[in-house]
Amino acid sequence: MRKVTVGVDIGGTNTAIGVVDVDGNVQVKNSILTPGHGDAKRYINDLAIAINDTIAKVKEIDADVELVGIGIGAPNGNYYKGTIEQAANLSFKGVVPFVDMLKSHFSDVETIVLTNDANAAAIGEMIYGGAKGMRDFAMFTLGTGVGSGLVVNGDLVYGDDGFAGECGHTTLVSDGRLCGCGRKGHLETYCSASGMKRTAFELMAKYNATDSLLADKSFNELDSKMIYDAAVAGDKVALEVFEITGRYLGQGLSDTVHHLSPEAIFLFGGPTAAGDMIFEPTRRNMEENLHPLFRNKIKILPSKLDAGDAAIVGASALVWKELEK
Amino acid sequence: MRKVTVGVDIGGTNTAIGVVDVDGNVQVKNSILTPGHGDAKRYINDLAIAINDTIAKVKEIDADVELVGIGIGAPNGNYYKGTIEQAANLSFKGVVPFVDMLKSHFSDVETIVLTNDANAAAIGEMIYGGAKGMRDFAMFTLGTGVGSGLVVNGDLVYGDDGFAGECGHTTLVSDGRLCGCGRKGHLETYCSASGMKRTAFELMAKYNATDSLLADKSFNELDSKMIYDAAVAGDKVALEVFEITGRYLGQGLSDTVHHLSPEAIFLFGGPTAAGDMIFEPTRRNMEENLHPLFRNKIKILPSKLDAGDAAIVGASALVWKELEK
Repeated sequence: MRKVTVGVDIGGTNTAIGVVDVDGNVQVKNSILTPGHGDAKRYINDLAIAINDTIAKVKEIDADVELVGIGIGAPNGNYYKGTIEQAANLSFKGVVPFVDMLKSHFSDVETIVLTNDANAAAIGEMIYGGAKGMRDFAMFTLGTGVGSGLVVNGDLVYGDDGFAGECGHTTLVSDGRLCGCGRKGHLETYCSASGMKRTAFELMAKYNATDSLLADKSFNELDSKMIYDAAVAGDKVALEVFEITGRYLGQGLSDTVHHLSPEAIFLFGGPTAAGDMIFEPTRRNMEENLHPLFRNKIKILPSKLDAGDAAIVGASALVWKELEK
Repeated sequence: MRKVTVGVDIGGTNTAIGVVDVDGNVQVKNSILTPGHGDAKRYINDLAIAINDTIAKVKEIDADVELVGIGIGAPNGNYYKGTIEQAANLSFKGVVPFVDMLKSHFSDVETIVLTNDANAAAIGEMIYGGAKGMRDFAMFTLGTGVGSGLVVNGDLVYGDDGFAGECGHTTLVSDGRLCGCGRKGHLETYCSASGMKRTAFELMAKYNATDSLLADKSFNELDSKMIYDAAVAGDKVALEVFEITGRYLGQGLSDTVHHLSPEAIFLFGGPTAAGDMIFEPTRRNMEENLHPLFRNKIKILPSKLDAGDAAIVGASALVWKELEK
C-alpha cells in the first residue's frame, strides 16, 4: 500500500484540500468555500464530503493507497486541543472542537492533527523543503499578516497553551502602527504585504511624490506586486519601501535569533518573490542588530515549498511529523 | 551514599564554588578570584584545587557523600562544546575548551557540564525553584546586563550553536541606546540595573531636576538600590525610572511571549527587590503589547532562588538536569 496524507488549509475565503504523497507531491486537489455553510458542524460535514471525494479521485488513479492521516492548518488552530479558537476571519466563532468533530466522520483515521497555518508551513519546510535535517529553524510567512513557526530541537514550539510562534505580533515600534489584533507597532504592520502598502503611502505623503508610479493607485488598489513592479522600474518610493521593509524585518528576525539562535530563517509568501530586493536589506539589517556571538552565522533563505501548494503540503506534513513520534 | 553536585559560577571578579544537595541547599561555599592566575590552564588548575578543598570540607562533616557532577555557569558558556568563547569580562580570551580542561583534573567525574549564567539560573528555577513542573517558561536575570534562559518542552533552548536565549539583546528601540555588545537599542540598555541608571540621568536632564534625591550622585556613583530608595521616598524622577523600566521590560517580555507562549516568566536580580514597583508596570505594559490570544494568561513571577546562592545553585542544577536524560 502506498501511504498518503490529506492536507487541509482553512483560509477566510477558501478551504483547500489535497492528497499528498510522502515526498510532498500533491496528487489531487479540491476546495470548498469556507463561509456559507451555516455553522461549524455543517461546514465540517461538507468538508468531510469533499475530503472523501478527493480520496476517491486518487483511488481512481491508484487503488492501492492508504490514508494515514489528515493534517489541518487553520488560523488560531490549537495543536494541543485540536480546536480553532476566536478566529477573526472565520465564520465559526468561539472555541470549535474541530478535530473531535472531524473524527466523527473519519473514525478509522487514527491521526487527525491541527495547528495554525504558519506552524504547518514550518513543518512542511522541515519534512519536504529546505529545512530537512535542521533541528533549529524559524519560518516567517509574509502575507496579509505575518505568521511564524518556530522549531527547537527538531520539534515545533507550541508553548504552554498551543499558540506559540506568533512573531508577527512582536513589537518593533513602541506606540507604532495599529495592528489588526488591536495592539500597536507589531511586526506585521510593517513587514506584511499590507504593511508594505502602508509604508508606500507614508512615503508618498512624506515626499509629496506625485511622480511616483504608485501615485495613481488608491489605498485599496495598491498591492505588494505593484510595489515590486514599480521598484523594478526604478521608482524611488517603491525602492525605499523595500529598504524600509527589510529594515523592520531584519530587526524582527534579530529578535528571533536572540531568542532561539536558529540555523536558518525561511521566508515565505508574496513579497519574497522580489528576491534580493527584500532579502538583501533584511539580511543587512538583521546583522546590524545582532550581538557579535551570532553575527554572520544565521542564514535567511527563501522557502523551498511551492507557493501554490505550500499550505496544503504543510498541513499534510503535520501527519508525517506526528507519526515520527 | 548521599549524592551532591558542585556548582561553579564564574564572574568577572569572583568565581564562586558550592557543594549543593538534591534539594538545592548549599552545604559549603568557597571562592577564588577570577583574574590574576595567568592563563586559562592555570586558572582551571587553581579552580580544581578549590573544588577539591570544598568537597573535602563537606566530607569532614559527612564522609558518606558522592560527587555526581560539576555544573558551571559562565559568560558565553557553550553547552554543546563545553567552551567559553570570546567572553568580554574574563581574562582568558578566544575559545577556551573549559570542560575538557577541567575533566583532566576530575577524570572520575562523569558529568561536567557548562552553560551561561542565565541558562544555569533558569535550570536552577526548574529543578529547585518556582518553575518546578513547568515545561515552558522563561527566566530573565536583571543585573549589570540582562541575561535570559528559555525552557521549551521541559528542555533549555540552546539553539543551533549553543548560544540561544540572549533576550537581553533583542532590539526595543531602533537606533536607541548603545549596548555593551556594540549594537543599539537592546533591551539590556533599558532594563538592566545600569539601564535604570541611564534612564534616571536622562530624566534629570529632561526635567532639570536639581531637587531630585538622585541629583547629587555622579554617573559612576548611582546604582539601582539608590533609585529604589529615592522612589520609596517619593522622588518623582526615581518613580518615573521604575515606570519607564517597566514599560521597556513589558515590551520585551511580550516579544518573548509571542515567540514561546510560556506558562510564566521569572525575574531575578537586584531591581526585582523593588517588588510591585517594578512588577506592576512590567505586567501592565506586557499586557498592553500582547495579541488577545495571550492576554491575562502569562504569569510574571519573582524567582524563588535565594539571591545570594542562585548562581551556584543554578550551575549545580545543570548536573541534575543532565542526569535526567
